[in-house]
Amino acid sequence: MPCVVAVVGATGIVGREMLKTLADQSFPADRVVALASARSAGTTVKHGNEELTVQAAVGERFDGVDIALFSAGASASRELAPIAASRGAVVIDNSSAWRMDPEVPLVVPEVNPEAAADRPKGIIANPNCSTIQLVVALKPIHDMAKLKHVVVSTYQAASGKGRAAVQELLAQQRQLAAGKELSWSVFPGPLAQNLVMDWKPGTDGYSEEELKLVHETRKILGDAEIGVSPTCVRVPVVTGHSESLHVQCHEPISAAAVLRALSNAPGVVVQDEGYVPGKEPQPLACAGTDPVFVGRIRDDLAVPGAVNLWVVADNLRKGAALNAVQIAKLLVGA
Amino acid sequence: MPCVVAVVGATGIVGREMLKTLADQSFPADRVVALASARSAGTTVKHGNEELTVQAAVGERFDGVDIALFSAGASASRELAPIAASRGAVVIDNSSAWRMDPEVPLVVPEVNPEAAADRPKGIIANPNCSTIQLVVALKPIHDMAKLKHVVVSTYQAASGKGRAAVQELLAQQRQLAAGKELSWSVFPGPLAQNLVMDWKPGTDGYSEEELKLVHETRKILGDAEIGVSPTCVRVPVVTGHSESLHVQCHEPISAAAVLRALSNAPGVVVQDEGYVPGKEPQPLACAGTDPVFVGRIRDDLAVPGAVNLWVVADNLRKGAALNAVQIAKLLVGA
Repeated sequence: MPCVVAVVGATGIVGREMLKTLADQSFPADRVVALASARSAGTTVKHGNEELTVQAAVGERFDGVDIALFSAGASASRELAPIAASRGAVVIDNSSAWRMDPEVPLVVPEVNPEAAADRPKGIIANPNCSTIQLVVALKPIHDMAKLKHVVVSTYQAASGKGRAAVQELLAQQRQLAAGKELSWSVFPGPLAQNLVMDWKPGTDGYSEEELKLVHETRKILGDAEIGVSPTCVRVPVVTGHSESLHVQCHEPISAAAVLRALSNAPGVVVQDEGYVPGKEPQPLACAGTDPVFVGRIRDDLAVPGAVNLWVVADNLRKGAALNAVQIAKLLVGA
Repeated sequence: MPCVVAVVGATGIVGREMLKTLADQSFPADRVVALASARSAGTTVKHGNEELTVQAAVGERFDGVDIALFSAGASASRELAPIAASRGAVVIDNSSAWRMDPEVPLVVPEVNPEAAADRPKGIIANPNCSTIQLVVALKPIHDMAKLKHVVVSTYQAASGKGRAAVQELLAQQRQLAAGKELSWSVFPGPLAQNLVMDWKPGTDGYSEEELKLVHETRKILGDAEIGVSPTCVRVPVVTGHSESLHVQCHEPISAAAVLRALSNAPGVVVQDEGYVPGKEPQPLACAGTDPVFVGRIRDDLAVPGAVNLWVVADNLRKGAALNAVQIAKLLVGA
């Protein structure tokens, strides 16, 4: 069947990555349409070797669209996703707008592909970047021994906050190299040579980002009892989110068993030869690649039957664009 | 009584900070002597407004020295600290050489000052940077409810690895700003825009740095049963180590009780008004300051009675030079 794909928010950092990923993955689209805010209409964006002219994302643009990949922010999604769905498109939305809606499946194809079929609103949500790599790594462990409690501390890259955030980090690094004062407006302070927690406040002293790790993980893994203790931190890295995990299950697990399970897991590359300095997964090396890299898999020193690990992935690809395109592939059976 | 202080390893990043801290803290020294390897002899280093000429650290240089602050690396300490002690100096050693020796006290003055008095070898060990800030933050919690299990993920600055490491990070940042290829020799890969684990291997898949967090914490807090689950990560920050902690005690604890206990704790500044983006303790702001900053104190979402927190301190000051000078002050009753 012919398949028309729209990318909404095509000029953003994730939108561009979606267009690139559609081409890289040879997604079977008959036509790809680039949509964005009226402000960006008329500009061009790349899709493989093509240049697409960006059109304003208004209702009639979704007529004839089969799949609409949204990465336009939560408020645009709240407004436009139902319109796109009402005109017949299946929406795959990268924002937080619909993720916790009980009538919207939250899908990571390696983890819960079956959920994509039940979409009463015509909307499928793409999880948050930091959640996607977490659940890809946790799913084989959950299947093996039922997750009980995960302590996760993140090391998140600037690109998770969008293009302006990357520009700001790079500008600060140039300011440092030139011995100039640091300036900022996207982040709430300098990120170069620093760490910041820049996400919106959630509840109970947690950031929204931290709460996403709790609630999205439970929804995707289909287990509301999983305990998650999150701390989210932004690091001066351009692309590549890293996560330090301490994992306890209802059954005892061992590093050896986790390593075996992850070695056969879809979407995972185990990069672990014991502790060898500099040989662990690193964000700079993972940027631009598709897998979720897992290393430092080791038996815990304090809790018998617990395991610690280190998980790194490209937050723009598996953490956003690639996961969305993989969902689209599920829809078309590609 | 007259007090002569020697700084051994005076040209290193911590040695220089020791000389600065002795001056900043108005340490009651009648004379300060700068010692280093023969290679550095004849160069000068700053101590307050004075310039000290560096002398080779050989045995006779310790004659008449009352307190020798060592920051010359583990192998130099192993050789020279007993010589200095045999000539009458009390050695305060910043290396890992003596820390786990049962006849050498491992001292953080806010935590276990009494231990400094019992030093059969004439040597007192200064703990590892990442341990010092950890135990300063944990001690009031341990006193309140007896620590059971701490999961700690670190975000450690380049300066913890010495001057050459800082120079390498800064050079890489200039290379990035100039669009050049990154080069490295101190770290096992690029640190700019990246994360690395560059410490020596320990046992059981852990780095030596991670094992220090386990064993030093137990020794300083005097409780071999405390469970520590460590992950140590180097971040592209020049100075200021940060730590994400998940803390469980034998008694239930609450964020409110921990905040109260830490608000009155020596050496601690609580910087916490709930979650406010950018208002948490940050390494760039903490660099050049003395306290251990604690923020993000919050009740855990998974384990009832557990608490999470975020701990930041200057790894060269409280994590090294300041702690050593504070031990010296204990010795002279200053």
